Amino acid sequence: MNQSVLTRPFLRWLWLVLCWPLLVQAAEPLPSWQDGPSRRAIVEFVRTVTAKGSKGYVAPAARIAVFDNDGTLWSEQPLYFQMLFALAEVKRLAPQHPEWTTQQPFKAVLENDIQTLAGSGNEGWLKIVYATHTGISTQAFLTNVRSWMAKAVHPKTHKPYTEMVYQPMLELLAYLRANGFKTYIVSGGEVEFMRAWAEKVYGIPPEQVIGTTFFGEYQYNKGKPVVMRLPKLAQNDDGPGKPVSIDAVIGRRPIFAFGNSDGDQQMLQWTAAGTGKRFMGLVHHTDAQREWAYDRDSKVGKLDKALDQALAEHWTVVDMAKEWRHIFPADTQ
Amino acid sequence: MNQSVLTRPFLRWLWLVLCWPLLVQAAEPLPSWQDGPSRRAIVEFVRTVTAKGSKGYVAPAARIAVFDNDGTLWSEQPLYFQMLFALAEVKRLAPQHPEWTTQQPFKAVLENDIQTLAGSGNEGWLKIVYATHTGISTQAFLTNVRSWMAKAVHPKTHKPYTEMVYQPMLELLAYLRANGFKTYIVSGGEVEFMRAWAEKVYGIPPEQVIGTTFFGEYQYNKGKPVVMRLPKLAQNDDGPGKPVSIDAVIGRRPIFAFGNSDGDQQMLQWTAAGTGKRFMGLVHHTDAQREWAYDRDSKVGKLDKALDQALAEHWTVVDMAKEWRHIFPADTQ
Repeated sequence: MNQSVLTRPFLRWLWLVLCWPLLVQAAEPLPSWQDGPSRRAIVEFVRTVTAKGSKGYVAPAARIAVFDNDGTLWSEQPLYFQMLFALAEVKRLAPQHPEWTTQQPFKAVLENDIQTLAGSGNEGWLKIVYATHTGISTQAFLTNVRSWMAKAVHPKTHKPYTEMVYQPMLELLAYLRANGFKTYIVSGGEVEFMRAWAEKVYGIPPEQVIGTTFFGEYQYNKGKPVVMRLPKLAQNDDGPGKPVSIDAVIGRRPIFAFGNSDGDQQMLQWTAAGTGKRFMGLVHHTDAQREWAYDRDSKVGKLDKALDQALAEHWTVVDMAKEWRHIFPADTQ
Repeated sequence: MNQSVLTRPFLRWLWLVLCWPLLVQAAEPLPSWQDGPSRRAIVEFVRTVTAKGSKGYVAPAARIAVFDNDGTLWSEQPLYFQMLFALAEVKRLAPQHPEWTTQQPFKAVLENDIQTLAGSGNEGWLKIVYATHTGISTQAFLTNVRSWMAKAVHPKTHKPYTEMVYQPMLELLAYLRANGFKTYIVSGGEVEFMRAWAEKVYGIPPEQVIGTTFFGEYQYNKGKPVVMRLPKLAQNDDGPGKPVSIDAVIGRRPIFAFGNSDGDQQMLQWTAAGTGKRFMGLVHHTDAQREWAYDRDSKVGKLDKALDQALAEHWTVVDMAKEWRHIFPADTQ
């Protein structure tokens, strides 16, 4: 009896000392976020909507959170990664298309002629996208994306693209899900391009990935049916297309939205216009050292009108350089 | 002490006797299904895919079940209920459209001229659908559907339409969800028409309702944004359109599919063609007494080619008259 009286408090004390760092970490969400205004706004919002009996309480089923992808969940410089995939695919497929050696914009891609490529405009890009993203089945396309993803590295950082996701945003996705939110991607990127890796990298299942889509065609194929991807845009999930997609696919208004560019402005407006407590956030790329710094004049991920509205309406604007302790998962090691 | 020895077993016995019917019901799923081949096939399938360690085990995330709506979850005679809604809306809206008194097919609707209406074909129907389903915001349309649903009754049964859902299918939906399935509607019906009541009636949330869609347009509206419904079909979610929609919205192949007509054949083929254990089911309307009897020659819900394939490939065909103890929820009382 005497022994247990002496040892029990000591053991409890020892256990606390040893486990303290773990306990603190578990208690503090979003460890890669500085204790700045953005982190505080997120935590405050989540506490309010999850506090049963509070005025701002939202039932779990209505806790819909939407995230842009390029520039919000992973990097988008010097070019959207999906475009880098498309360029690599043109080179991989070139032997099957001898006509491309004389046909623009393919010729420019094969000759690394950036200037001609840039001059080919949206129409040129669409030709490249159709040639590399359509005319095959969804299954075959997913395989192509995964093959590329497994080997390709970023031209500047030399990291695999799936390691160029933002650690603070991975923590935010997990934090929201732990609080009963359903997390969605709503991106201008093509939907299957993202589905090929989004579950593994972000923990977001295919049915919660919304993106730009092509029309599809069912082919029975003697009992081995496929859905073929047609070279025709069905929905351009960018700018005003984002609330339209959210309405069509989710059928309810998000209470939480995060973007980083003018292409996300309408999604944030749509989220803001609902009743009850709402969270609208923008990632502001201010970190030329650790990532990139760009906003109003950028060709990729331009942030101008959405920034004006965010400042005017007191949406959360994340200063990446000041508010993120780490940028990429590798930085935490 | 003596008292408790006497009373405790007696109390336990009394409790068992009183609660026995409830216990039996809880232990036996699908009480409105006769112990026939369809019920056995369903239970056997669910047991196999949920038995951890079994060869046929499927992880919960991949337990996707899809259901047609008209004729599978609720009745569809003498006409799809959505069409009855559209006809009622033409009458409600007529005062705002004096031109309809001379314009077909609206004139025929207002004059109850069934023959002219039937002769107006798909083109005529599309005019009626556009006039009653588009040109307004999603929110306004949902309100219209709910207003109609709250008062309208079926021309033959005089029941509200939401009471013409099939009790055995409600039990099946609940049984699948209790076993970790995600239940989806995949219907030729317009998506918002179904979302207006599907959660309340079927327990299926808006994001799990897939249907025919119109293109949408975002309007900022001075800070009160709306998504306007445009008179242009985006996706016709019928026949070969069903696997295309499933691929676009869910992004994974169902393991369980239920339909009732040739419009579901491709969805069932698509489900059947995946690897591992699969369940394909058809509701066969064989019950002229309690519901309707129709198949190969029916104008609504024709079941011909899909029935041939179901018989050839041993899909489950539910004989409504023989296998369903009750049809509608009211029948169980």
